[in-house]
Amino acid sequence: MSSEVLQRFHPLFYPRSVAVVGATDNPFKLGFHALSAVTSSGFEGEVYPVNPGAGESIQGLRAYRSISDLPRGVDLFVYAIPARQVIPSVREAVEMGGNAGVIFAGGFRETGTEGGLLQEELIGIANAGGMKLIGPNCIGVVNKQARLNATFASPLAWFPQGNVSVVSQSGGMGNSILNEIMDEQVGISKFVSIGNRANVEFADMVEYLAEDPDTAVICLFIEGLDDGAAFLEKARLASRRKPVIVYTRGYTESSSRAALSHTGSVASSESVYRGAFRQAGLLQVSSSSEMACVAKAVAMGAVPEGPGVFISTHSAGPVVAICDICERAGLRFPPLQPHIAEAIAGFIPEHAVAANPLDMFAFAWTDTSLYLKAADLALAQDDIHCAVSVFVTGGGAGPVFPAREYAEIGRKHGKPAFICLVTPWALASDIADAQQQGAVAFSSPEKMGSVLVNLHHLSGLRDEA
Amino acid sequence: MSSEVLQRFHPLFYPRSVAVVGATDNPFKLGFHALSAVTSSGFEGEVYPVNPGAGESIQGLRAYRSISDLPRGVDLFVYAIPARQVIPSVREAVEMGGNAGVIFAGGFRETGTEGGLLQEELIGIANAGGMKLIGPNCIGVVNKQARLNATFASPLAWFPQGNVSVVSQSGGMGNSILNEIMDEQVGISKFVSIGNRANVEFADMVEYLAEDPDTAVICLFIEGLDDGAAFLEKARLASRRKPVIVYTRGYTESSSRAALSHTGSVASSESVYRGAFRQAGLLQVSSSSEMACVAKAVAMGAVPEGPGVFISTHSAGPVVAICDICERAGLRFPPLQPHIAEAIAGFIPEHAVAANPLDMFAFAWTDTSLYLKAADLALAQDDIHCAVSVFVTGGGAGPVFPAREYAEIGRKHGKPAFICLVTPWALASDIADAQQQGAVAFSSPEKMGSVLVNLHHLSGLRDEA
Repeated sequence: MSSEVLQRFHPLFYPRSVAVVGATDNPFKLGFHALSAVTSSGFEGEVYPVNPGAGESIQGLRAYRSISDLPRGVDLFVYAIPARQVIPSVREAVEMGGNAGVIFAGGFRETGTEGGLLQEELIGIANAGGMKLIGPNCIGVVNKQARLNATFASPLAWFPQGNVSVVSQSGGMGNSILNEIMDEQVGISKFVSIGNRANVEFADMVEYLAEDPDTAVICLFIEGLDDGAAFLEKARLASRRKPVIVYTRGYTESSSRAALSHTGSVASSESVYRGAFRQAGLLQVSSSSEMACVAKAVAMGAVPEGPGVFISTHSAGPVVAICDICERAGLRFPPLQPHIAEAIAGFIPEHAVAANPLDMFAFAWTDTSLYLKAADLALAQDDIHCAVSVFVTGGGAGPVFPAREYAEIGRKHGKPAFICLVTPWALASDIADAQQQGAVAFSSPEKMGSVLVNLHHLSGLRDEA
Repeated sequence: MSSEVLQRFHPLFYPRSVAVVGATDNPFKLGFHALSAVTSSGFEGEVYPVNPGAGESIQGLRAYRSISDLPRGVDLFVYAIPARQVIPSVREAVEMGGNAGVIFAGGFRETGTEGGLLQEELIGIANAGGMKLIGPNCIGVVNKQARLNATFASPLAWFPQGNVSVVSQSGGMGNSILNEIMDEQVGISKFVSIGNRANVEFADMVEYLAEDPDTAVICLFIEGLDDGAAFLEKARLASRRKPVIVYTRGYTESSSRAALSHTGSVASSESVYRGAFRQAGLLQVSSSSEMACVAKAVAMGAVPEGPGVFISTHSAGPVVAICDICERAGLRFPPLQPHIAEAIAGFIPEHAVAANPLDMFAFAWTDTSLYLKAADLALAQDDIHCAVSVFVTGGGAGPVFPAREYAEIGRKHGKPAFICLVTPWALASDIADAQQQGAVAFSSPEKMGSVLVNLHHLSGLRDEA
């Protein structure tokens, strides 16, 4: 099966050639942005601009007046054309042996009965020709591994390459999630905005990404499902192989109206979803930022194997916040064993108490080696499953947390070592540096607490499975 | 009263002269960082480094071997010395006519009975001499209006000047809140880390900031209160003059332990606090980021006068998320009046429905004037109290939201105009640009939704008062 699903969607994610239908030199048209997105991402396959009104070239590439002028067997067709032109154009692509398509236009199922019929017709044509369609009513597909940006948004190619994949019903929310992932300084693998889901559903993408060797964690933004059972079946299988994180919205009256006019989804009740998702082993989060933070920890291999946290700091306030968030969710800050407490008492400053949480006052800010000694001792304790060091970064003007040595201590004990590196975005490079050195860092106590809670839930899901 | 409280704390916030006791040339000591924080912030008053072991100068400034060598009447003493030296040093400062002090050292009330007695002695000396003490066990005071950075953290001077003031029990959490405020691209006025609260309490700072003409909104991080009644009385008076936002932590067993070893606070139960704070008219938030976002809206004068929101977009997903968050908190998305709907129907694209939420599809992304027309029409409707435009920014590579014209429309109708400008931090300058043009922008749908909810709660508090 593995190779089957990877093969089925290979032309979509790894096309040898891409045709941009509706490509143009006019920057006020979507077709302009669609073509420049494909050409500016470093994609190395053939690119064919198609426009009936074209001259010799579009954006410097040889132009084609019709799909029938193209070589046979173009892998991926990107449709930057109005809804009414989509059906004949997809029919042509199928006749020319096209394998996959991305359709940006709205005007299908989300607009009511008539649009629904159009979408049915579209699905019939695509299915008959074995063509997989992303959309309609979407922003398309990005695959960093193939340097493919089959959207109309060039900036999507800026996101660094990594192993987090995102499938979103909404292009805008997908973008928001990608933004948060980029802000967490990790990279993406595949991004799919699936919109109206003509003949590619969440179930398909989850099945694909579960097999995809370049995806370590699957992130889904869902407004509504047509075939919940099919999705849950694939999701259950996927979550046994790698973490699947789900963020759902559309549960109120006004948001349902927005969702309906959007991708034609009718939301179920929140509680029905929650229960079913949990049973399928999916981790549920409630914001783009939360999703990005937990995806980062997973992508970096930092999933604690139990609820015990050791936390040390030079500033107690952030620890108060982190403990508040964690303890309520069932995480624990186990007391230190006497011999460990004694060893720690040997080097912490006067007035400091060798306990967990461990507050070493401002001394630890100037002498950061105290963090390393404390973590090395505490991580040896059986009921402690990860270390968290809280450090308020001073940028170039202050001391720097020894992330490399700290990460090394985590590896030595086989337990995650996190840093809550309290940082404004002006100093985000401190986070990036710490992560390049192997430690997983979060910029605020609330993010740090929320990540620990979500990782704890993730362990719970694994234990239940 | 106004002038009395401003005068009482004038030497603390607007000192003519600052002595840094424990100043040194050794960068591994706090006294090094304390002196360089004062001298690198642009402070224009006299600065006196004091160290018994000093030579002629410290960091290029004339050095003093003892406080008694200083000119009489130095306004502010910054103590970067160990706890055991603090009491004699404060006594000397009082004798030399010192008016205010900042004490970084821990080792007082937070360490137990003995430390508590030390703190009592300290308070006695300061009170007898009329000296106001911030701390002990704190990171100090920043006043952007006076270019004063009386902390040991030079980077705190980087925060831009504005009208948001922050008082935090914890230096680290204070820093986290300042970071989030900076990330929201607004500026601060006063920052006070009050630590153990020797003789300056939250009540004093709230009273001061309520009168301070440079403070538009007061942000408090509280772990515990000694005299709740005194605080609530001052807070009630303050919240009638300007919004007071409170973030509290320390409600669980592990976090209480951390808080106790921290600034010697014993937390009450959460529900007791919540009820009392609400009665006093304080807006309660649950994260640094939430605090910064709502403070920004208030600081920019964007507080809607009712629950009616008009929201328009080119991408429905973020609107689904915003509506979900808002509707649950009692906000409303009123149906458009027929004549307004009709006018909007005249320019929105085929398939779009002239409703609220208003989805104009990708057309509005390329033709951003649709947002302006829609907001201008909708804001004329009585039961609509603010406009929210959702726009996924493409940086330099895509269209730019017309923030100036949009802000102008808001002003014309006397109603706030928000942009949910879905943006990664790499494009944070888009947020800054929009705000310089007068529109209030948030980078994610969750932040946008949360701000609207908090502003709605703020109106509720005002109506109750």
